[in-house]
Formats: sequence, C-alpha cells, structure tokens
Amino acid sequence: MDMPIPNPAILARKPELIDRLRQVMPDDAIISDPVATRAYECDALTAYKCPPLLAVLPANTQEVSDVLRICHDMGVPVVPRGSGTSLAGGALPTEDSVILGVARLSDVLETDYDNRFIRVQSGRTNLSVTGAVEEQGFFYAPDPSSQLACAIAGNIAMNSGGAHCLKYGVTTNNLMGVTMVLMDGQVLQLGGAYLDAEGYDLLGLICGSEGQLGVVTEATLRILPKPEGARPVLIGFDNNEVAGACVSDIIKAGVLPVAIEFMDRPCIRACEAFAKAGYPDCEALLIVEVEGSDAEIDEQLGTIIEIARTHNPVELRESQSADESAKIWLGRKSAFGAMGQINDYMCLDGTIPVSQLPFVLRRIAQMSEEFGLDVANVFHAGDGNMHPLILFDANKPGDLELCEEFGAEILKLCVEVGGCLTGEHGVGVEKRDLMLDQYAPADLEIQMAVKDVFDPKWLLNPAKVFPLATSDTRRIAAE
Amino acid sequence: MDMPIPNPAILARKPELIDRLRQVMPDDAIISDPVATRAYECDALTAYKCPPLLAVLPANTQEVSDVLRICHDMGVPVVPRGSGTSLAGGALPTEDSVILGVARLSDVLETDYDNRFIRVQSGRTNLSVTGAVEEQGFFYAPDPSSQLACAIAGNIAMNSGGAHCLKYGVTTNNLMGVTMVLMDGQVLQLGGAYLDAEGYDLLGLICGSEGQLGVVTEATLRILPKPEGARPVLIGFDNNEVAGACVSDIIKAGVLPVAIEFMDRPCIRACEAFAKAGYPDCEALLIVEVEGSDAEIDEQLGTIIEIARTHNPVELRESQSADESAKIWLGRKSAFGAMGQINDYMCLDGTIPVSQLPFVLRRIAQMSEEFGLDVANVFHAGDGNMHPLILFDANKPGDLELCEEFGAEILKLCVEVGGCLTGEHGVGVEKRDLMLDQYAPADLEIQMAVKDVFDPKWLLNPAKVFPLATSDTRRIAAE
Repeated sequence: MDMPIPNPAILARKPELIDRLRQVMPDDAIISDPVATRAYECDALTAYKCPPLLAVLPANTQEVSDVLRICHDMGVPVVPRGSGTSLAGGALPTEDSVILGVARLSDVLETDYDNRFIRVQSGRTNLSVTGAVEEQGFFYAPDPSSQLACAIAGNIAMNSGGAHCLKYGVTTNNLMGVTMVLMDGQVLQLGGAYLDAEGYDLLGLICGSEGQLGVVTEATLRILPKPEGARPVLIGFDNNEVAGACVSDIIKAGVLPVAIEFMDRPCIRACEAFAKAGYPDCEALLIVEVEGSDAEIDEQLGTIIEIARTHNPVELRESQSADESAKIWLGRKSAFGAMGQINDYMCLDGTIPVSQLPFVLRRIAQMSEEFGLDVANVFHAGDGNMHPLILFDANKPGDLELCEEFGAEILKLCVEVGGCLTGEHGVGVEKRDLMLDQYAPADLEIQMAVKDVFDPKWLLNPAKVFPLATSDTRRIAAE
Repeated sequence: MDMPIPNPAILARKPELIDRLRQVMPDDAIISDPVATRAYECDALTAYKCPPLLAVLPANTQEVSDVLRICHDMGVPVVPRGSGTSLAGGALPTEDSVILGVARLSDVLETDYDNRFIRVQSGRTNLSVTGAVEEQGFFYAPDPSSQLACAIAGNIAMNSGGAHCLKYGVTTNNLMGVTMVLMDGQVLQLGGAYLDAEGYDLLGLICGSEGQLGVVTEATLRILPKPEGARPVLIGFDNNEVAGACVSDIIKAGVLPVAIEFMDRPCIRACEAFAKAGYPDCEALLIVEVEGSDAEIDEQLGTIIEIARTHNPVELRESQSADESAKIWLGRKSAFGAMGQINDYMCLDGTIPVSQLPFVLRRIAQMSEEFGLDVANVFHAGDGNMHPLILFDANKPGDLELCEEFGAEILKLCVEVGGCLTGEHGVGVEKRDLMLDQYAPADLEIQMAVKDVFDPKWLLNPAKVFPLATSDTRRIAAE
C-alpha cells in the first residue's frame, strides 16, 4: 500500500516542534524517542506500520487546542488516535505526522439521569461509560466488540455500531453533542443535551468523519435505562442460506430483537474452542436476543422461534440462565480474538441489504474457492453489516496481497448488490482506493470540499478516506 | 421583519427567464401571472407574505436540474417549497426569487419489503408514503401533525418529527438516502438502502438544512412493520408542573412509550370543542401511548399507570377501543387547527431537557402575565420538544409584534436551560436573528462555510436560517 511521501522540511524541524510543544504541555505528554514512538506505529490493522514523528498525550481541550495550533502553524500533519483498535488503519501515522492520543482524556464531566445523558472526555473507553452509570441502572448502547478498549473518540470517528445496534442504533443515534477542536486550534461546540439543533447538522457530519474534520475532546452521550432482562436464543442451521432467509423473515415480521448475530462453521468452531459457549456444531448459527420483562421476552421469543421452526433448524435453544447468556455473548464477542489465535485474518465490514444475505454468502463461498483462501463469517445480520474474516498466512509471501485482492472483490460485491464498503470500521487507509467504486467523482469532490472548510490545509489525518492520489493532489494544492 | 432588497436586474430579466424555462419544461409548469403567483406568497407562517417572481412545478429530477442550472446561470435565487406547511417561514419567497414547488414529484419509485424501504419522489405527502405500504402491514414512522398535507421534501428540509418520534426518531433517523440537485444543476446521490455509508455523512448534513444546500428530488425512506396494536392512556392533573414531573419519571423508568403528549387547559378545551375526544376538563393532560401485542401493552401501561398514580392524577383512563384511540389522537393532532378557530396564534418549537419541563412551564406562565398574552401549551413531552402557542389578535395593532417579542423570550429561555430554538419546525425566517443566542459567531461561520461548498453563490433559499445581516453580507460577497 502506498503511503504519502514524508516532507523532509518537517522532519528537519522536529526539535523546534518539540520545543514549542513543551511550552504548552508537560514533558511526559510528549513522546519523541524513536523507540517509544513505535508504540504508535499501527492500529489493529497491523499489516501496515509506520512510526510517527512524535506522539503527544494532551489531558484537556486547551492542550489539544494548543497542540493543533502549533502543528497548524508549522504545517505538521496530525493523526488523532483513540485506543488504536481501528481495523481499517484509521489511526495509522505517517513519518512526518504527530499522533495525538486521547488516552489521558478519560474523565466523566457530568451525569444527568433525569435527562438521560453523560458528558465525558473523549478518550474514555466505551465500556467505562456504561461503568460510570450502571449503578444507577443505566447503560450506553453502542457496543463494539472492542468495547473494553476502544475510546469514545474512535467510536465517534468511525460511527461505531456493535451487536446491539439493531435496536439502539449506532453511535450517531446516541451522540448528542461534542466539543471539537479544529486544526487551527479553534474550539467548537456542536449539539448538546437536547433533541435536535437548529442550523445545519454538523454533529451528524462529524460523526463518522474519521478524525479528518476536527479532534473531538468531549462528548455528550445518550444513556438509557437498563432493560429489566434480556435472553438470547441460539438457532442452528445446516446451511448458510437458510439462516440468511430466517434473518430476513424475523426482520420482516416486525419483532425487534436487540441483536441478530450470524456465525458460520469456521467461526463457530473457533469461538467454541476459545469461549466454551456451548455452541452446537453446525453450518450456521444465529444468536437472537430480545429484551424486556419476562413476559415480553417470552412473547417475542415465541414469535421468533415460530419463524425459525419454519426453516427447519438443527438446533433451537433458549438460554436458561444469566450465566449461559453471558457465555453465549462471550463466544460471539471474542470471535475476532478466537480467529486470531488460529490464523492471520483480515476483517471486512461491508454492509448489504438484508435480503441479499443468502446471495452474498453464496458468492463469498464461490470466491473463497477461486482465491484459495478460507473465509469465516461473523456479523450483525439484522442490519446487514457483514464481517467476513479472510484467513491467510502472514508468513507466506504473496498471501497478504492475495487476501487484499479478495477483500476488495467482496466489498465491490457489497456495493453491487446495493450496499456499501463499511458499516462501522471506517474507510481508513484500507478502503480509500475503493471509494471510487461507491462514489461518482462529483460525490467525492463535494466531500473533499467539506474537508476544505474544516481543515483547509489538509493536515488532519492525511492519506485516509479518499483515494491517495486525489487527496494528495488536494493537500499539495492547499500548501 | 426585514426582507432582503430585491435585485432590480433580476426583476428586469423575468421575460428572458421565462423563455429559458419554457425550453426545459411544459408551459403549465411555469406560473408567472402575478395573480397566480400569489398562491405561493407565504407558507403556514402567514404573518409574512411576499409573492415570488415566478413559480415552477418540475415533475422529475431532470427538470429540477434544468431549472436550477438556468437560475444559477442568471443569478436568480430559488426557494424550494414542499407543501407550504412550514410554521417558520421556511418557504417564504423573496420578490426576485423563483419558487420551486415539488407538488408534481409525487410518485412511488420502488418498494422493498424485504429490506424495509420505499423510494419516493420528494413531493409525495408524508401520509401517502404510509398509504403506499400499509396494505402490506408497513408504515413510515415520522408523523408531523400536518402529515396529511406536508411533503417528504419539507420533512427532510426541517428534519420533522411528530407525536410518535419518541420511539421511532425523527426524519434523520428514518431517511436512508436522497437524490439531490445542487444549485448549479449537478445531481448527487447521497446514502442509499443500506445501514451507513463510508466517507462523510452528507446525508445527515442535508437533513434539516432547510433547503439551503440542494433540492431533494427523491428519497429512500425506512419503513417499519406495523405493531400488532397500540393503546393510549389519558392522564389528567390539576397542575402543569406535576404533569411535567410525571413525564420525567416515566422517561427515567425505562419504559419506552411511542408517544407522550402534553396539553394544558387552554389547549384541552379547544381540542375537546373541536374533536369531541372525551378529554377531561383539567389543568394538564398527558396522552401516553404504548405499542405491541395485548400482553405487552398491558404490561407497559401497568408500569406507566403505577408511576402516574404516585402523582395523584385527577383522571386516569385507558382507551377501551380503536375508535376511542382514534378520537384521542384526532383531538391532539387537530390542536393547532382547533386553536386557530378561536384565536390567532404563533406556534413555537423550542426544545428543552425533559427535567426542565416544570420550571419552563412555570416561567412561561409568569411571562404570559407580564406580556398580557395567553399561552396554550401542547407538545411532545417525552423528548422535550415544546410547542407553546401564543394567542394574539392579528387585527389589533401591535399585538403581532408583542407576540413575536414574547416568543423570542420563550425561545431564549429554552436556550438558557440547555435546550435549543427549534425541534422540528426549522429556523426559517422566524428565528434567524435568534441564532446568535444559540451559537457563537465561530459556530455560525463554519455553518455558513458549509453552505459555501454546496451553494457558493448563496442563491438557494436566501434570507433564512442565518441572521439576515450576516447572510446578506455573505451573499453579496459571493456575487
């Protein structure tokens, strides 16, 4: 994969940059030693690595503003970084860029149970947002698999979803306001603790903009009262397509489970070996979870099970206890980790219309044979967000490239059937050159013109989202 | 209220404009007679009127593109108009502008029940979207009170909500994609029939942008399976504040009604006289509706009624039949019409944190005495979207101005308690000068810079959203 050519003038001014940064933040917040900066050389897309010029760890909005102002003055690119769990290289640095890590921005600033919101610094981890309110019976809904580690800043940058987003929506549906710093150091307030705001919806625009429009330092998040209870049911099938058809039927019937998760055989086996969740050994497995009171749960699961029976499942098992439910979810949530123990893999994130599930699964199986690489499928089936894991051997020359080629073909297939390249992982560096498969040049042009407004010099998270040649041209023109 | 000064050069070129428009659309789609154009002189904010230079009624995206290209070439402002139900003057023309009405864009283009979406032309009315899918058991969720008349184009422009948006969200939560024409005639596709799209969320940005960034000609909308049943309960109180406290408690308890509507005594009386809904005669009335199977409804209403009892209601009545439910809703939905029969009124649209309801209601009552104008309150209490109706006499000199002053004070109060100027009616001309009460100059500057991207000449829906002096400066600079 191509990286932008580093600017030697910036590399030469590193000592000056460090001096200026020292005037606005403590020494221990500036990481400049080449060994230490290697901790920031990649995110969870570990196939690509590049240590940054520097990393800084500001602790508040003022420090973020100061860092950005200095870098803006000196023309130094800045790559914002949440917890580095991006699967699309969203936090991959360039040689001449400063990593701005939000790890020290972890405070809870305000909780308001009457109005159901929490205001946090953006480096707080997803799960610890729920942690801050669960004693009062509340939770924060978006739940990416990486929720133990991933930061709210990254969730906002990627508009992250999670298994339970079928019912509760993704980050943009649960984000009420942000404090954001522009590349020139200016601090903006967007949205707030109310329903909607007048004027243009810049908050919606920021959510999912992959850290290219500004650095979010604080976020006001919707919190929800915890449901009385929840119960998953496992439904096994001897055929992927039938499982896909069952998902379609559940969605059409108008019950709204909180989650419908899909795993195929390679994934089921790996998860079972890892988490001992009691998964049956079958071709395709659905985890369907509903919430509410016991009576509501019985009623909803009754409908779901009735639909499932029409598809001749080989397994149909309601969770019998809280322990069993937790195990079932531990299995699913550790899918990526479990696969990683037995294989190198590349995780895709295409989104398709739900009705296309059976067709797309069949095509992926065919393509798997053509490319000679195995695929494990695990995904949020209810909303059509697929996560095919292509298995490869990182030590085998050419295997990564083959895997990338295969991945690109799967994503093009998603676009062909009316879907898109990414549901929640973002474009990052991974999919930037596929953007022309989704968008006409005019569509990309207007997106880039919006970036011009927020970051006229194109310094913020460079070489991401847009095809490299296009964004490089734009960046150089802005210099 | 100030209006921008019309450009005499444009007025002089009216015949040339008509000639050019005749080349791209049928004669009967061009309304130029000064008597006929008066049909477009205002929207539902009838206090302000100004006939446009022309009105055009394109029937497809190509015609919209042609009209915009011609107007762009000639420097003629264009005011897009849905059904003209805007309560904030969002479709108010200027003397030198062309009204672009979407009334002929009313076709259903595609329905897909498997993937739960419908694609329509943007002039289709809100209720007829549901009409197109209800035989199959589906519906379109956002339900503004004007849903019989209002167009999807206007719903998108204002990010409209409605009584049932507490559960289903507002337009932006139900809009999947649009075809939009830029002022220079360029056609863009934003979003589509899938979960989320990569790149920046321009779809989210468009929704609620009050027709200032482009003209939406087609929309892909999420449709939902109709719930098995629904049942409202009426809860009456002898005190507004207690009713407000009851709303807070219901929200906090974690039951999710589809709607919590609030009416105070003046509103209850007017609605009852109009719709004979069987409303009790009390100080404050809540309509709380839940959905689901009978068992689910019983369970949810049980919880709600239990909470209500702790607030000593003077009336607590579950609907006993579908007829009674329909009547209850007819009463609420005709509130504005009912009030209009007995008074001139100005309808506000401020949004506040739910916990501030009791305080804000008390302050409005005090201000009502200070200004000597009565106020009727009716609103979506569950999400804090207030609709105070200030009653005045349009024939009494000075009364409108006093009413406007009072309205501005109420909206500033909403901002003070942490809310905002408008939940769903938009800024339009009505609230443009209040934008500086909500936003810092830098916040407005970046919103206007976004408009620069989509409409560099500032021709689309001029003199709205931003303070007139500010947007006029910008427009003139762009000339």
